[in-house]
Amino acid sequence: MKIAILGGTGKEGAGLALRWAQAGHEILIGSRDAARAAGKAAELAGQVPGVVARGLSNLDAAAAAELVVLAVPAAGLEATLPEVTTACAGKVVVSTVVPLTFGGGRLFTPPAAGSSAELAQALLGTEARVVAAFHHIAAHELSAGEHDIECDLLYCGGDADAKRQVAALGASMGLRAVDVGALTNAGPLEGITAVLATINRRYKLKNSGIKITGLPDST
Amino acid sequence: MKIAILGGTGKEGAGLALRWAQAGHEILIGSRDAARAAGKAAELAGQVPGVVARGLSNLDAAAAAELVVLAVPAAGLEATLPEVTTACAGKVVVSTVVPLTFGGGRLFTPPAAGSSAELAQALLGTEARVVAAFHHIAAHELSAGEHDIECDLLYCGGDADAKRQVAALGASMGLRAVDVGALTNAGPLEGITAVLATINRRYKLKNSGIKITGLPDST
Repeated sequence: MKIAILGGTGKEGAGLALRWAQAGHEILIGSRDAARAAGKAAELAGQVPGVVARGLSNLDAAAAAELVVLAVPAAGLEATLPEVTTACAGKVVVSTVVPLTFGGGRLFTPPAAGSSAELAQALLGTEARVVAAFHHIAAHELSAGEHDIECDLLYCGGDADAKRQVAALGASMGLRAVDVGALTNAGPLEGITAVLATINRRYKLKNSGIKITGLPDST
Repeated sequence: MKIAILGGTGKEGAGLALRWAQAGHEILIGSRDAARAAGKAAELAGQVPGVVARGLSNLDAAAAAELVVLAVPAAGLEATLPEVTTACAGKVVVSTVVPLTFGGGRLFTPPAAGSSAELAQALLGTEARVVAAFHHIAAHELSAGEHDIECDLLYCGGDADAKRQVAALGASMGLRAVDVGALTNAGPLEGITAVLATINRRYKLKNSGIKITGLPDST
């Protein structure tokens, strides 16, 4: 699949790009700065022999992709999304965005929409098929590309086919996918990242994650 | 320890009472309806031979206890807490409350304070030592009192000694306790219950839970 990762020069975006490149997907790194994106794409090509990877502006990446992943900072949604609305129409758009505010006060600071994913849906309009997912997979784990990731993929959204595609993307990097219902659950999913970030800081870790217990083995 | 469970006639409160009774704690079941609380206490005495358990009004239970657990519905906080403020002063108050709204719309509906625990702190005043905890341990697991619970105890709050007491309460029922920082993280902890409730519904379970991965074995 041809996957655009908007904000793909950041740690989380680059980690996802690496895993998906290893799984055989074509990667379009998007950035406000197309030259920086091209640099990241070249880096990825060095890590994964044979990968098809390009660096582009966010708009060009979204327009060329089959599936669009949002890996921009939460504060960048309102600047980034209006220009890619037409490019995203009809496509699966995966929001990995987490509304965290570092600096010692309240860490989890969701927008009035309830979550960054719901804000993204509002900004992109109803034609984008937004799924919230991949918030909990530590960038540190993703970038250590050779070992299994001890974390479930929790995802939610309103479009059943879009959710199946996201679950398959997770499976392609070895993750168990757990369906967490409608996009109105995106706030709680994004909030888990605040929990994990706090645990990482308190226990001096880089890679805490989450597993759901009680599910049948077949999940 | 002498533990009051306000709203202790509900499923979650009764399940916690059972586990703590088994661990040797004295249990004060609190309820708006003291007679109903007395019935629950008698039930508990039938389940755990030798337990010291009484049913009381919420106020009498809070006044007599060393530690107070809030297991009332989120919508009941504003009616219940003002009358127990003096009884809770200086005590550890554990909020297990989750602001969920069932009925098909948005499931996680935190108050303007950010979380039920922060609302509880605001209602009880600064002398109550509020810790948010025990939101994720399924009532179904608690009430099946004989087997181990596959779920971590995630807790947060502003008082280090109060948090140590809550971690010990979790250990007394066999739970691994994971410190999730300040009370401003209570919203994300409460939100996880919306995730688990949705998973239970979608996968036809009663007892999904959560484990943090990546922690050292000694945690």
